[in-house]
Amino acid sequence: MNNESLTKYIAHFVDELAANDVTNIVISPGSRSTPLAVLMADHSEITIHVLIDERSAGFYALGLAKASRKPVGLVCTSGTAAANYYPAIIEAHYSRVPLLVLTADRPHELRDVGAPQAIDQNKLYGEYVKWFADLALPEHSSSMLRYIRTVTARAIGTTLAKPAGPVHLNFPLREPLLPDLNYLKWDDLRERSKFVQLPQSISVINEEETKRYADFLSSKQKGLIVCGELHEEKFSEWIIALSEKLQFPILADPLSNLRSGSHTKKTIIDQYDSLLKDEEIKQHLKPEVVIRFGSMPVSKPLFQLLRDHPEVYQMVVDGHGGWRDPTMAGSEMIECDETRFCKSLVHILPEKKESNWLEQWVNINHVFRNHLNDQSPDNEPIFEGSIYQDLKDLLPEKCQLFIGNSMPIRDMDTFFQNTNKQINIFANRGANGIDGVVSAALGVSAASSFPSYLVIGDLSFYHDLNGLLASKMLKIPLTILLINNDGGGIFSFLPQSKEEKHFEALFGTPSGLDFQKAIEMYGGAFCRVKTRSDLRAALQSNQQKGLQVIEIITNRQTRVKTHRELLERVSQEIKREFLT
Amino acid sequence: MNNESLTKYIAHFVDELAANDVTNIVISPGSRSTPLAVLMADHSEITIHVLIDERSAGFYALGLAKASRKPVGLVCTSGTAAANYYPAIIEAHYSRVPLLVLTADRPHELRDVGAPQAIDQNKLYGEYVKWFADLALPEHSSSMLRYIRTVTARAIGTTLAKPAGPVHLNFPLREPLLPDLNYLKWDDLRERSKFVQLPQSISVINEEETKRYADFLSSKQKGLIVCGELHEEKFSEWIIALSEKLQFPILADPLSNLRSGSHTKKTIIDQYDSLLKDEEIKQHLKPEVVIRFGSMPVSKPLFQLLRDHPEVYQMVVDGHGGWRDPTMAGSEMIECDETRFCKSLVHILPEKKESNWLEQWVNINHVFRNHLNDQSPDNEPIFEGSIYQDLKDLLPEKCQLFIGNSMPIRDMDTFFQNTNKQINIFANRGANGIDGVVSAALGVSAASSFPSYLVIGDLSFYHDLNGLLASKMLKIPLTILLINNDGGGIFSFLPQSKEEKHFEALFGTPSGLDFQKAIEMYGGAFCRVKTRSDLRAALQSNQQKGLQVIEIITNRQTRVKTHRELLERVSQEIKREFLT
Repeated sequence: MNNESLTKYIAHFVDELAANDVTNIVISPGSRSTPLAVLMADHSEITIHVLIDERSAGFYALGLAKASRKPVGLVCTSGTAAANYYPAIIEAHYSRVPLLVLTADRPHELRDVGAPQAIDQNKLYGEYVKWFADLALPEHSSSMLRYIRTVTARAIGTTLAKPAGPVHLNFPLREPLLPDLNYLKWDDLRERSKFVQLPQSISVINEEETKRYADFLSSKQKGLIVCGELHEEKFSEWIIALSEKLQFPILADPLSNLRSGSHTKKTIIDQYDSLLKDEEIKQHLKPEVVIRFGSMPVSKPLFQLLRDHPEVYQMVVDGHGGWRDPTMAGSEMIECDETRFCKSLVHILPEKKESNWLEQWVNINHVFRNHLNDQSPDNEPIFEGSIYQDLKDLLPEKCQLFIGNSMPIRDMDTFFQNTNKQINIFANRGANGIDGVVSAALGVSAASSFPSYLVIGDLSFYHDLNGLLASKMLKIPLTILLINNDGGGIFSFLPQSKEEKHFEALFGTPSGLDFQKAIEMYGGAFCRVKTRSDLRAALQSNQQKGLQVIEIITNRQTRVKTHRELLERVSQEIKREFLT
Repeated sequence: MNNESLTKYIAHFVDELAANDVTNIVISPGSRSTPLAVLMADHSEITIHVLIDERSAGFYALGLAKASRKPVGLVCTSGTAAANYYPAIIEAHYSRVPLLVLTADRPHELRDVGAPQAIDQNKLYGEYVKWFADLALPEHSSSMLRYIRTVTARAIGTTLAKPAGPVHLNFPLREPLLPDLNYLKWDDLRERSKFVQLPQSISVINEEETKRYADFLSSKQKGLIVCGELHEEKFSEWIIALSEKLQFPILADPLSNLRSGSHTKKTIIDQYDSLLKDEEIKQHLKPEVVIRFGSMPVSKPLFQLLRDHPEVYQMVVDGHGGWRDPTMAGSEMIECDETRFCKSLVHILPEKKESNWLEQWVNINHVFRNHLNDQSPDNEPIFEGSIYQDLKDLLPEKCQLFIGNSMPIRDMDTFFQNTNKQINIFANRGANGIDGVVSAALGVSAASSFPSYLVIGDLSFYHDLNGLLASKMLKIPLTILLINNDGGGIFSFLPQSKEEKHFEALFGTPSGLDFQKAIEMYGGAFCRVKTRSDLRAALQSNQQKGLQVIEIITNRQTRVKTHRELLERVSQEIKREFLT
């Protein structure tokens, strides 16, 4: 290997990335990865994002890929650097996000002989990547340049093929590691590019099956459509069309992005998490048939309804061929592109007259929504649920909203209501970790010029404090609503709360950190609020410049009680009004 | 599974840990891991360390295991939490540290069906763990209690068997997750404990081979003993005895812990990294035979000497059966317990008269040491090398010193000189990552009542800032010398520094962080020094209470030049004095 080989081989690799529209690369500094980093920095079509902590870099790339709907590259040096990507790679695997993980490695003669910073990087991420290739050492024969172009295109195609996910290319590289830009004219390289193209394919079901579903579904009165997280072109309009044609309400998880946007219609039910908590109301609203799209929704009452009633005919549609049925009550597992599935049915389904079933769902949902709305007084300590109620009023017309795991996503599900605003909602719901959330939200922000928001709890915020460096170094704006109840709020809802002897030490885990100091270190603006009106004022005056953190002080001891009493009150009223 | 099964099964597991002296467990909060966490907290012989960030927790456990020389347990919940351990597990694998990784998991029926926070945890760490077992669900029949006791003892035995390393046990657990302490009398459990014992075995060579080595080595005049990181009982005294018998100098990496302690003798060479940098001196001191112990030392000039001279007969001794020879010039790979190897030879080797060869090494080393000593003026901006020269004067008689990767360990190697003080030196040299260093140092501190110190660069410090929470929450003292040159100082020594166009963005990566704010958030004391005398004053007045950070401002642009000029001056003098 000489410097000409290194330079040309890696340049063709980098140019093939750009040719396939992989133009965002997140690089963590290192020596072994020098040729990749230098040539990416030098390519006019590629934007590099340099982040020091690979764990944060991984999640930042994940957010960027989610929001841009394109594969994002990750570059790091050899050694444990690469292992720091593991949490983000697992999240990308389960949430079907295309990532291209590019690790520099020692050449073969320095492997497994105790050389410094050399670990076994072969299949480092196990089955969490869709494809792994340990690449050839750099050469610049035309066949090897063709090889690197082909491997690159194949890797990118593989990240995007359904289900999308991460791919890992490992680059053995010998010293000298510095490419010689004199060997390089980028314009000349492109002639030989695009050796191979990979059109996307989708799974569909045939007309006969579609007809069967249409007959079956049109024979049912009590049906529900359930939609979890799903990112498919034009899916929103066709699922709504299907719901209207069938007169089935849509139980829409916040991550379905059906609760927000101009498409939002009355058939979209946003309060089911609360109303299904009541056993009597649940029995009253129990369906005969359910059509499910996307990942399993956040709502536990909905999950329990499906799990505990296997007599409900449950059709699970997944265009990516997954088996997403933790209820173990699925009746049909249908591998079909979700948009096509809805569209085909809408075309052949007969018109149905307006149904009492749908009206009931809509009305009960409406009452719930109204009653939940005014439960939190403006000037008293804030009830966490009201934060999510207020978001739809306080956020701008077009924005991105990232929701943290553990309590925030559950509260979002319970309290966030339909809005015509174009609020694009994200969360890491592949593996539901509290890790990497700050970075993922900054990645989402980096992908768009609209204002971005993150709602996150204090443990999760601490877990990825390092992620804030992206805001400082890459100048990425983000407004963070930091819900600080000093510890693990979710455990107060769980049976663990009965374990008085060890509770605070093992589950409450109050860190007592004054985050204001960290925010200052990262050059962000900070304010602290304790009441609903203060929060409104803070959000309304928010400039969306740089990093802004609004810390919302809440109390994990009292919130469980407040929440339970609130639900009890509303449920009683519903029952008086509708069930008697 | 009922609560009695869960409680008894996990209690027997926990008690078996204690019975086998695994008494330190690092727990990260989570729901699925509740039975493990609660019963560990409840066991009188077990100390739990609760840390929120699993990446930091992993490295903290690594440090604790290194310093205590005992396996340490790690407990986390299901999902990406477990993936955050990966960097520490890889480091433990390569640095041969016993870790017992205990992950809670969803039960079988919730795996691979899109259930929340459920990832495939089978073989999550690939070949980086010595053993993986997906355990049975809890049952409390006597055979299953015997099973869990046996598996536990086997796992612990496996972590310790040479080479020591991590083992992963995965616990599928069903709800309800809260153990019922009414089912439990700890005192009754112990009767059935210690089902199986696992005495440690070692590898040795037979007498014939030993005789052959004795004959061979006593026939050689120009021999060297090279010692990298190694932790074996009584090894220090026997390697020194061997060196005296053979009249071979010992080139002692700082992590050999031969440069510090009461055993330190004149045969221990501490300046070889500098003196082998000069080609002429290197030729003059080239050996005929080398006996290597432990990992490959940090020093690049030493590595190059061995690699570039395969005619030097190189014997690589490793009692753990590793193949630690990145020089590709090894002549014999000897699997033999290192202490036994030295001891057997010492017993049969004939006395040798004092050798000129040894004297030369010792004298040249001495001159180097003297000359390097007074190169950094007291009141001018600090030269990084002088920090390590001063350590032996400024640190207390008995202490623990953790050295960060990248520049600190290299500078430690170059500048730290022999001392009779009992300075126990640590670093993460399995995979040499800059990650997790703060946490590992706090783990080392937690294992001992002696004062602990960490020397670390700013990028590495930032990488594991989260690690500081251990100091705050667990009240672990640590004094940190934070060498802040605002970025990646090592790259200024490498060819990358010629890459002017992209250097600062890709390699320098100045973060511009004011770490004082972070230290304050974690409740630590902070001071900033710029001169050698200020550093001395700061260290001398240091109280070793809680977290203390002394930030040392240095300049990565000027240090390369200063260092090179210094070496050049000393080498010239040596040559005048000894080589002409």
